[in-house]
Amino acid sequence: MSDNNPLVIFTPSGKRGHFPVGTPVLTAARQLGVDLDSVCGGRGICSKCQITPSYGEFPKHGVTVKDGALSDWNSVEQRYDDKRGLTKGRRLGCQAQVQGDIVIDVPESSQVHRQVVRKRAEARDITLNPSTKLFYVEVEQPDMHEPSGDLERLIKALRLDWDLPELEADLGLLKTLQPTLRKGEWKVTCAVHLGDAMFGPRIMHIWPGFYEGTVYGLAVDLGSTTIAGHLCDLATGEVVASSGIMNPQIRFGEDLMSRVSYSMMNPGGAEEMTQAVREGMNALFVNIASEAGIDSNLIVDAVFVCNPVMHHLFLGIDPFELGQAPFALATSESLSLRGIELGLNLHPAARIYLLPCIAGHVGADAAAVALSEAPDKSEDLVLVVDVGTNAEILLGNKNKVLACSSPTGPAFEGAQISSGQRAAPGAIERVEIDPVTKEPRFRVIGSDVWSDEDGFDEVIASTGITGICGSGIIEMVAEMRLAGIVDGPGLIGSPEQTGTSRCFLDGRTFSYMVYDDPERPITVTNRDIREIQMAKAALYSGARLLMDKFGVDKVDRVVLAGAFGAHISPKHAMVLGMIPDAPLDKVTSAGNAAGTGARIALLNTKARREIEETVHNIHKIETAIEPRFQEHFVNASNIPNAVEPFPILNSIVTLPEVNFNTGGGDKDGGRRRRRRS
Amino acid sequence: MSDNNPLVIFTPSGKRGHFPVGTPVLTAARQLGVDLDSVCGGRGICSKCQITPSYGEFPKHGVTVKDGALSDWNSVEQRYDDKRGLTKGRRLGCQAQVQGDIVIDVPESSQVHRQVVRKRAEARDITLNPSTKLFYVEVEQPDMHEPSGDLERLIKALRLDWDLPELEADLGLLKTLQPTLRKGEWKVTCAVHLGDAMFGPRIMHIWPGFYEGTVYGLAVDLGSTTIAGHLCDLATGEVVASSGIMNPQIRFGEDLMSRVSYSMMNPGGAEEMTQAVREGMNALFVNIASEAGIDSNLIVDAVFVCNPVMHHLFLGIDPFELGQAPFALATSESLSLRGIELGLNLHPAARIYLLPCIAGHVGADAAAVALSEAPDKSEDLVLVVDVGTNAEILLGNKNKVLACSSPTGPAFEGAQISSGQRAAPGAIERVEIDPVTKEPRFRVIGSDVWSDEDGFDEVIASTGITGICGSGIIEMVAEMRLAGIVDGPGLIGSPEQTGTSRCFLDGRTFSYMVYDDPERPITVTNRDIREIQMAKAALYSGARLLMDKFGVDKVDRVVLAGAFGAHISPKHAMVLGMIPDAPLDKVTSAGNAAGTGARIALLNTKARREIEETVHNIHKIETAIEPRFQEHFVNASNIPNAVEPFPILNSIVTLPEVNFNTGGGDKDGGRRRRRRS
Repeated sequence: MSDNNPLVIFTPSGKRGHFPVGTPVLTAARQLGVDLDSVCGGRGICSKCQITPSYGEFPKHGVTVKDGALSDWNSVEQRYDDKRGLTKGRRLGCQAQVQGDIVIDVPESSQVHRQVVRKRAEARDITLNPSTKLFYVEVEQPDMHEPSGDLERLIKALRLDWDLPELEADLGLLKTLQPTLRKGEWKVTCAVHLGDAMFGPRIMHIWPGFYEGTVYGLAVDLGSTTIAGHLCDLATGEVVASSGIMNPQIRFGEDLMSRVSYSMMNPGGAEEMTQAVREGMNALFVNIASEAGIDSNLIVDAVFVCNPVMHHLFLGIDPFELGQAPFALATSESLSLRGIELGLNLHPAARIYLLPCIAGHVGADAAAVALSEAPDKSEDLVLVVDVGTNAEILLGNKNKVLACSSPTGPAFEGAQISSGQRAAPGAIERVEIDPVTKEPRFRVIGSDVWSDEDGFDEVIASTGITGICGSGIIEMVAEMRLAGIVDGPGLIGSPEQTGTSRCFLDGRTFSYMVYDDPERPITVTNRDIREIQMAKAALYSGARLLMDKFGVDKVDRVVLAGAFGAHISPKHAMVLGMIPDAPLDKVTSAGNAAGTGARIALLNTKARREIEETVHNIHKIETAIEPRFQEHFVNASNIPNAVEPFPILNSIVTLPEVNFNTGGGDKDGGRRRRRRS
Repeated sequence: MSDNNPLVIFTPSGKRGHFPVGTPVLTAARQLGVDLDSVCGGRGICSKCQITPSYGEFPKHGVTVKDGALSDWNSVEQRYDDKRGLTKGRRLGCQAQVQGDIVIDVPESSQVHRQVVRKRAEARDITLNPSTKLFYVEVEQPDMHEPSGDLERLIKALRLDWDLPELEADLGLLKTLQPTLRKGEWKVTCAVHLGDAMFGPRIMHIWPGFYEGTVYGLAVDLGSTTIAGHLCDLATGEVVASSGIMNPQIRFGEDLMSRVSYSMMNPGGAEEMTQAVREGMNALFVNIASEAGIDSNLIVDAVFVCNPVMHHLFLGIDPFELGQAPFALATSESLSLRGIELGLNLHPAARIYLLPCIAGHVGADAAAVALSEAPDKSEDLVLVVDVGTNAEILLGNKNKVLACSSPTGPAFEGAQISSGQRAAPGAIERVEIDPVTKEPRFRVIGSDVWSDEDGFDEVIASTGITGICGSGIIEMVAEMRLAGIVDGPGLIGSPEQTGTSRCFLDGRTFSYMVYDDPERPITVTNRDIREIQMAKAALYSGARLLMDKFGVDKVDRVVLAGAFGAHISPKHAMVLGMIPDAPLDKVTSAGNAAGTGARIALLNTKARREIEETVHNIHKIETAIEPRFQEHFVNASNIPNAVEPFPILNSIVTLPEVNFNTGGGDKDGGRRRRRRS
């Protein structure tokens, strides 16, 4: 304590320095560049600068911290503790002053750039670095002798107190500025957007006095079928509400190509669809704000990811060119816009960010997947597949990343399958077929009980067995292949060939009876097998094409993205030949990686620059014009594949060598090419 | 011609350099930085790069130009000449190639930064440097192997061909981009805004192929009473149409203070007035576009000047704070906005610029006057007075400029004068009173015939004599003072004191009969004299206060700005003591200097930066809190002044030493202080 310039050591950063006795801890932290939050600028109002002093011997730091190393608990801290409660051991960094050598821990909740922890083990945490932050200031009052606008004095205060650059303000702010400054008696809290590529830094909102609340951002995954939004607290990074709605554009067409057709056939059709998606978006905002119990006016930033057609329709650009070669995007770079330009009911000054598109078929959603899964940072070679109506496929490592899209069609979503349905209670999601008896057992969504177990009847009493969902049909076809009910080329065998009466003649081909309900039998037809063959062949051949281009025959790991990807059994996907041969424990699900990418871009503005750069470096492959794609497609129509060996798969399972082709029946072998959608 | 690198000399710039034989003149000009226009980039389409070669001996340049110094007239030039006609002696700079030493004149019409000549001898010409220019480019077609947006390829073409920076584009442009590129077969003309303090450079509009037209800008003087606009061709600087309308806010109050009061008294009143002025503005745009025969969609830039109250109401900011000390502006700096933010029906991407305000009473209109009259560049000390309901006064020279405003009230506009009226046919505008007979002669607006001349009855047969306009009342009161009808303190004498029966008892004071029409007599009452005294005292004391602050007793010259200023007789203004004593030939009119300032800022974006800088350096004086203002006001209530000597005036005229105060009658001597309006 006799030392006039005690040593101050901050953890976890390890930053240290000597400061005069009496220096507030917040001041020391700022001078050292320690990440210690503050909204009120050290006025003892906001409590964001809470720190935890440590006392005793610290051989690691070479320092002994004695009692009295910080000034006594003061009246400001007492008042705050009485009013809101301060965690035991915590001090306010702006009030506690250095008296002797001290070790100070900055808890995560007091860090501006705290980590937002992602749930998956293999995923990187998100460093919080939001576009918009709160700043409290006291503003000079107007002086007739030195006339300057109230705005100019506010900007000056923000510059002097917070080192903020020359800020701008929208007209909307100017309208509320004067009464707010006076109501707050020249003390105000500002939400400041720190600027992006398109817009300079600007004051978004102003509250009289100290504003105790926070501001929010939205990460939106604008899909062809659903629109899902996550509302995040921009100060903590927490998701405070999530909500989803159906994309109202569905009434113009289930898949993207039918929407492009709608706009081509109907004058004003594109505008209609733009209107629909924006209205849907506003409905989503209402839902999500109401779920969080906040005013949607507090949403100041939003990030959108979507495929190119949705991207154009959302922006009000006719997607005509995306419907035909060379699939030219109107714009491919990221976009920073104002919410009002898109008619979005957020804060009037809210900023909107759309991730860049990779190519005419590989959109901002794929860019978001790349941001979330970061193949460009992977040491091993990773294949990332976002399974949907159109599959986006990324292959790469830290040296190079390739991307393509492949028109899988809607079969993986249960559409165009005779007993197919969306994932919902009552849908078959897991299947096993006994290779000897050829008898199936299955589970339906909503229960863990298998169909041959006790209690299954009770389970289905309420829901019934309504159909087969996307992941169910994959398991079903794979199990049929493993049980020798379907052969490599995709034909279902006759009762004689398979030895089971569950196979029955159904028109010109055979079908397999899964559940023989007299009113609602569930079967798999040979046409269903064809649909799955085409979908999986499209997916595989896209991946295989990227492997060709990369010059490899195998990948180190496979990441399945998309809600659907989360439910796929890796083994069955591999039996089907959807994905390349790989160790099963190296096939993982990333969940809604596009949505996660949107959330990363929302919470960390540096990640926006990062993905823009990454997208520039991703090499795009256009499957439609690659001759080898057709060849891969034909080979991949076989289950699992006509030419690829799949050694790892074959070490796990034995695929019966059956061939049911007797010269008659369906001959096209799944070789019809689906039109891109 | 044997020289492989002939000498090329451009006039009037004098720039010169050697170039290989075969170099197009446009290329040589670009390399030397010669200001030679081109929209098509040398493709022989636009004809903007016309030059005039000179042949023969040029001892001044030390060169002889022989026949054949330029390549022969070619088919492109022939085609252009056949189609549109090329002035004799002119060549297209992009077609004519250097063959030998040559002197090339760049006519003014081929210069981008040409001079726009101002009509007044003492005014500087305007250097054309508009915000928005046209550029023709040929764009790469999309390539599936290298996917990039159409916008990105357009921006690339503009960067490569024209050295333009990375441009941005509004959503509106993105909507038309793809069909326009294809319609133009990848050849398009772009209107590019080169950027300002708030917005980055951006593509405003795109036309298929080569666009033969031009784009326009608007300079708007948004006055309390009238809104006047000048439509300018941004390529030539020419004013192609002018139009004016009454400010629709007049229905909320004639003067500014009554509008501020209206907003205070009526909830939503400010919004109502904002709505009114914006609607009026849009009506003006319709008028002016129709007058010019253009689509208002071609107006891409607009500059507005106005006083602070109009500034706030136009922006949608409640002017409440401007109605009371300390007269705080919401914002004082210049503003760059989009037209759509203000609901203005111009090009959807149109940019709006508002000049900075100098102080709470000294607005963007005063800044525009400063830009037009440039007191900060004057060698001699100039007093610039913008006469209106509120007078803005600037005093300065290149060393220092001071500014203030003074509440003159509406008397100078003929309001609050018993026989006063707006300037219109039938209004008395010029007056002489015989100092012996005290008989008046006058002229009315619309005729050069004096009232005592033959033909006057015919003149007034159609209009009648309807009243006295603002400049008329100034001459009238000054002539009454010169004829000894009014004394220094402002009393009208009795018939006995003045020796004329035209003076007659009119209540408690005397009036002067100007025109004795039984139905509509025109008189000047003592109350009228009082109104004029107050108005002119306010004006003079503001000017005098600035002279005090500047430390001078006289000014070198006086510039009267404003439409009214154009009609004031300098001699009579000085007799009245409105303006300081100065040589009459040094009192000039600048016309609508605020409007001119707006036009300068419109046509030369560099002037915007210049006036922003100038305004920062102008020292503002707030008259309301200066004790000497009251003293000057009292002294200036006398005609011409109770204490100031006016030596130059006294060398020209003799002011009768009369005093009509006999101890009775009106005693306030004009000392009532008008409330600020």
